[in-house]
Amino acid sequence: MSSETSAPRPSQPLAFLSECRTRIDAELERLLPQENEPPRRVHSAIRWSVFAGGKRFRPALLLATGKTFGAPTEVLLPSACALEMVHTYSLIHDDLPSMDNDELRRGRPTCHIQFDQATAILAGDALQTIAFQTIANDSGLTPEIRVLLISELASAAGTPKGMVAGQALDLEAESRAVSGEELEQIHRLKTAALIIAAARCGALVARANEAELRAITTYAAHLGLLFQITDDLLDVTATAESLGKTPGKDARARKATYPAIYGIAAAGERARSVHTDTCAALESIFRPTELLRGIAEFILTRQS
Amino acid sequence: MSSETSAPRPSQPLAFLSECRTRIDAELERLLPQENEPPRRVHSAIRWSVFAGGKRFRPALLLATGKTFGAPTEVLLPSACALEMVHTYSLIHDDLPSMDNDELRRGRPTCHIQFDQATAILAGDALQTIAFQTIANDSGLTPEIRVLLISELASAAGTPKGMVAGQALDLEAESRAVSGEELEQIHRLKTAALIIAAARCGALVARANEAELRAITTYAAHLGLLFQITDDLLDVTATAESLGKTPGKDARARKATYPAIYGIAAAGERARSVHTDTCAALESIFRPTELLRGIAEFILTRQS
Repeated sequence: MSSETSAPRPSQPLAFLSECRTRIDAELERLLPQENEPPRRVHSAIRWSVFAGGKRFRPALLLATGKTFGAPTEVLLPSACALEMVHTYSLIHDDLPSMDNDELRRGRPTCHIQFDQATAILAGDALQTIAFQTIANDSGLTPEIRVLLISELASAAGTPKGMVAGQALDLEAESRAVSGEELEQIHRLKTAALIIAAARCGALVARANEAELRAITTYAAHLGLLFQITDDLLDVTATAESLGKTPGKDARARKATYPAIYGIAAAGERARSVHTDTCAALESIFRPTELLRGIAEFILTRQS
Repeated sequence: MSSETSAPRPSQPLAFLSECRTRIDAELERLLPQENEPPRRVHSAIRWSVFAGGKRFRPALLLATGKTFGAPTEVLLPSACALEMVHTYSLIHDDLPSMDNDELRRGRPTCHIQFDQATAILAGDALQTIAFQTIANDSGLTPEIRVLLISELASAAGTPKGMVAGQALDLEAESRAVSGEELEQIHRLKTAALIIAAARCGALVARANEAELRAITTYAAHLGLLFQITDDLLDVTATAESLGKTPGKDARARKATYPAIYGIAAAGERARSVHTDTCAALESIFRPTELLRGIAEFILTRQS
């Protein structure tokens, strides 16, 4: 059980994530349009949602993967921020009344509540645009790498293989019973695709070889599933305070979740088993993978 | 008055636009996700809006500019389609109830009326993603050109210098009196930016030199303004049948338009004067510019 014997001390991934967050926030601050520049309302809405206290898990994963394969953090930062912009755009649009109708996220009013629907739609639209623009303009990377990253990110964000497809299938599934298989397909698209893109983009910037890219893709696919299972479990078990959003909302919306389909105990068991798969995928990588193991451990044991 | 003596016969730009439309539609058909592939509702919505009978003016301008500077049509087609996807995404989102609340476009129900708001939001989101993906994956262009095109398109689509900024300022202006200067700023961002990007992208693919790129940018900036003035005039003077949407809507929404601010006669005069500027910008280009003159003529005299 190498995944357990080599597990890092709990403080290690937390320290890494915390350092990532500081650097990512500073880079986002630099990349995003200023609030005092018109259109002020949209720029304020963009910053309201981007700087809402997110954990920066996806960009941190990009930094961790890039670092594992030898890329310097400063070279990875713009792409990591682009990924976080795509993630934030999807949250803003998913929260809209015609979608998931969420009024609270990370303990604060969602974008369309704090501003208005039109502004929230435009803020999300602009964030997607700025994400691709950030990579296209990133002079720290070769044009070859930039088009690879844009292609990865677009595939993970769009349809039929990405986030938009997952959100569409999720909305469609709300009105009927969903099988465990359909549930995993929804989450593969809605959540795992962007997590996989994060890991692959880090590896691509660091010019990892084909075998390494395959291994990191498997790692991230398991990690994405683990992330979703623990997310669903937290919706059942956490308090509103620790979660920053209304818990129990999935159940009330009769959303397809792991605890709803399998029960809480079996969902917890599934999380531990997926965590083992996640770490096992790293065994073929002949690089120091403590950071990536630490992130998997962090996701398994997270409280928010 | 070289712009008048060298004006093409009216049939020439029409034939070119018609041929462009056929080739662009075939390429869009190839690039967009299939309706029978899940999520079917979103894919149907994408195709509903993309194949709604648009004139393909922006992608045709990209083809015309590229052709003027010597690029083959087949090399220009994917970027031209990416541009049309960005345009269509903006129409879908602008039509939403919280934005311009339009139920009819090109004589058919708008996307959120035909489907639903969530589907329309996702269809627009996905179209933006596929646009950037199309350019990033375009193996007919070097990676250097691809990142240039993505950067151009993103700047024209986003904020503070593009379409999202224009739409935000337009919404903000609805509740108050707007000066002629503010009106031109809104249209520069909301309409002209993407028209300028179309012309510049064609020139970039064809590797036009710096002076040519400057001239074509000036041409397209005037053309964008001309397009908006004739668009506003058509809203006042055209019938619902020729327009494919409800005319007079701008006036009822108390939108800032050229006829509203200057009156119909003065707006028509302004259109003719801007048309002269548009053609004058071509005089420094030592290439056959009949096609680009023809397009300006077409925009000045269009009936829909």
